[in-house]
Amino acid sequence: MGEGEAADPAAVSAARELGRLIAGQGWVVLSGGRDAGVMQAVNAGAKEIPGSLTVGILPTAQARPSPDVDIVIVTDLHEARNNINVLSSDVVVACGRAGAGTISEIALALKNGKTVLLLASDRAAIDLFQPIGKARIIVVQTPTEAIETIQHLRRSKSNAIRL
Amino acid sequence: MGEGEAADPAAVSAARELGRLIAGQGWVVLSGGRDAGVMQAVNAGAKEIPGSLTVGILPTAQARPSPDVDIVIVTDLHEARNNINVLSSDVVVACGRAGAGTISEIALALKNGKTVLLLASDRAAIDLFQPIGKARIIVVQTPTEAIETIQHLRRSKSNAIRL
Amino acid sequence: MGEGEAADPAAVSAARELGRLIAGQGWVVLSGGRDAGVMQAVNAGAKEIPGSLTVGILPTAQARPSPDVDIVIVTDLHEARNNINVLSSDVVVACGRAGAGTISEIALALKNGKTVLLLASDRAAIDLFQPIGKARIIVVQTPTEAIETIQHLRRSKSNAIRL
Amino acid sequence: MGEGEAADPAAVSAARELGRLIAGQGWVVLSGGRDAGVMQAVNAGAKEIPGSLTVGILPTAQARPSPDVDIVIVTDLHEARNNINVLSSDVVVACGRAGAGTISEIALALKNGKTVLLLASDRAAIDLFQPIGKARIIVVQTPTEAIETIQHLRRSKSNAIRL
Repeated sequence: MGEGEAADPAAVSAARELGRLIAGQGWVVLSGGRDAGVMQAVNAGAKEIPGSLTVGILPTAQARPSPDVDIVIVTDLHEARNNINVLSSDVVVACGRAGAGTISEIALALKNGKTVLLLASDRAAIDLFQPIGKARIIVVQTPTEAIETIQHLRRSKSNAIRL
Repeated sequence: MGEGEAADPAAVSAARELGRLIAGQGWVVLSGGRDAGVMQAVNAGAKEIPGSLTVGILPTAQARPSPDVDIVIVTDLHEARNNINVLSSDVVVACGRAGAGTISEIALALKNGKTVLLLASDRAAIDLFQPIGKARIIVVQTPTEAIETIQHLRRSKSNAIRL
Repeated sequence: MGEGEAADPAAVSAARELGRLIAGQGWVVLSGGRDAGVMQAVNAGAKEIPGSLTVGILPTAQARPSPDVDIVIVTDLHEARNNINVLSSDVVVACGRAGAGTISEIALALKNGKTVLLLASDRAAIDLFQPIGKARIIVVQTPTEAIETIQHLRRSKSNAIRL
Repeated sequence: MGEGEAADPAAVSAARELGRLIAGQGWVVLSGGRDAGVMQAVNAGAKEIPGSLTVGILPTAQARPSPDVDIVIVTDLHEARNNINVLSSDVVVACGRAGAGTISEIALALKNGKTVLLLASDRAAIDLFQPIGKARIIVVQTPTEAIETIQHLRRSKSNAIRL
């Protein structure tokens, strides 16, 4: 999860690397699906890997999906679709400085009992979410660290990743 | 689209055959995703075909997905998720005698400008929907006829199948 | 519930009378809220009665509400908002010949266990919904008959009207 | 908007006073509708004022509404209903220390262009939302200050309050 048109270059670059690494694990990339910012980049990164699979949950019937989304889900729910994004994810990675949309997704993920990785996030988001999410908020600095953290969560017998 | 627990054996059998044939074309099967009736059968049929891909749009976080669904989308929208089912489909096939849920999907599909195939439907559903949907309601008797109709729609330059 | 721009004059006239009669009972009118057809008329009828209260559940943030709606609920869910219309109603009245939107509402109402009055409906809708809804589908010809039927449902100790 | 079962006594007390003051202005109180915490208190406060009107947007068909809600809207959308709460409000007041649900509402409100008053909020929420929302985030300490701020917004010819 991350910003669309407002994403900064560092977040876009991290998202592309994250997409490559997720797909390299054989995992499915699920995003908000639009052809912009973090959504575009994570799908583009994933499709560099042969056999990758990408799912995009579009807010409206008019929204243009990223060309790298394999499975387009059209919700026509506008911002209410953010809840579907997090409910359909095994683990949520919020990539880059969070804007209003991404903040809503982090909050909805916690509300639904999901674990959230804050990747290259800003201090204010960490300070707000860590006391609320406790062990379900994990701060990471790089895409590689995000992948290693998810691998660790999967190996542990905890319920940290809910399927 | 079709009934869950209330599906009759003929509808289940047709759904299984339909799933096989859709997957045989290399198309993606999208359904309501639950582990019952037409939803279960269409996914089971599809997974008989190597390389098939199935998507299930679940109504709630508690609903058990069919084990043959590859991509599980969790909406937590209850019946409102029916609109996502039809919006995310290139063409809708309503399989068997329609109950209340399936009728809502046929109606929502027409409302959203989608083409609907009524496969082995009952007279009352056809009589209600044909005058409303006109050319966007197509009555077919068998899964094979459904596939041939969709192939024909794809070949024609019409907008009958909206992507 | 009923058609918007596509409503015929008889349905609009019946909706206006229905709004007057509902408000005359001291009941709240809840509709899809748009400034068209049956929605517009039922609210206009209600507001002829001093002290009436009207609620409109709008499909999008851009949709113009009927000026006679007191409480505007903005959903931005497009057609998925139809499920909220019926869930928020004690009893559903479908007014006039049903188009795709209204059919989806009748079907969703039955799916959610609500009682539906088909007021001045057409034969095809009655033939489809009566076998499915059984005692929860009630056919009436006039707004006055609709009100008397609801009064009767309220007096009976049945669960026909779920609150 | 504010916490349910997790609301602290100060937030509940402020919500009750806020409900009284909103109703005293002749404005409608709209909340998440459940019979808990800030939602319960704001409605209870409003109903101390004769002629007040309260609207509750319930997450599920099973959720028990506050007895002080006049108009119950049943969404069955779980957390996705938070977007309806903010879209249907002229101005949003987040009352007390924000948990995950309230944070999602503040974020969704900003995403939808609404103005949000943070009433007796905590430092971390203010620090996160002020740089994002800019003039559309207003920090207030008391219910009286909240009302005065809304009155000021209404008097100004700005678009700060979108109807």
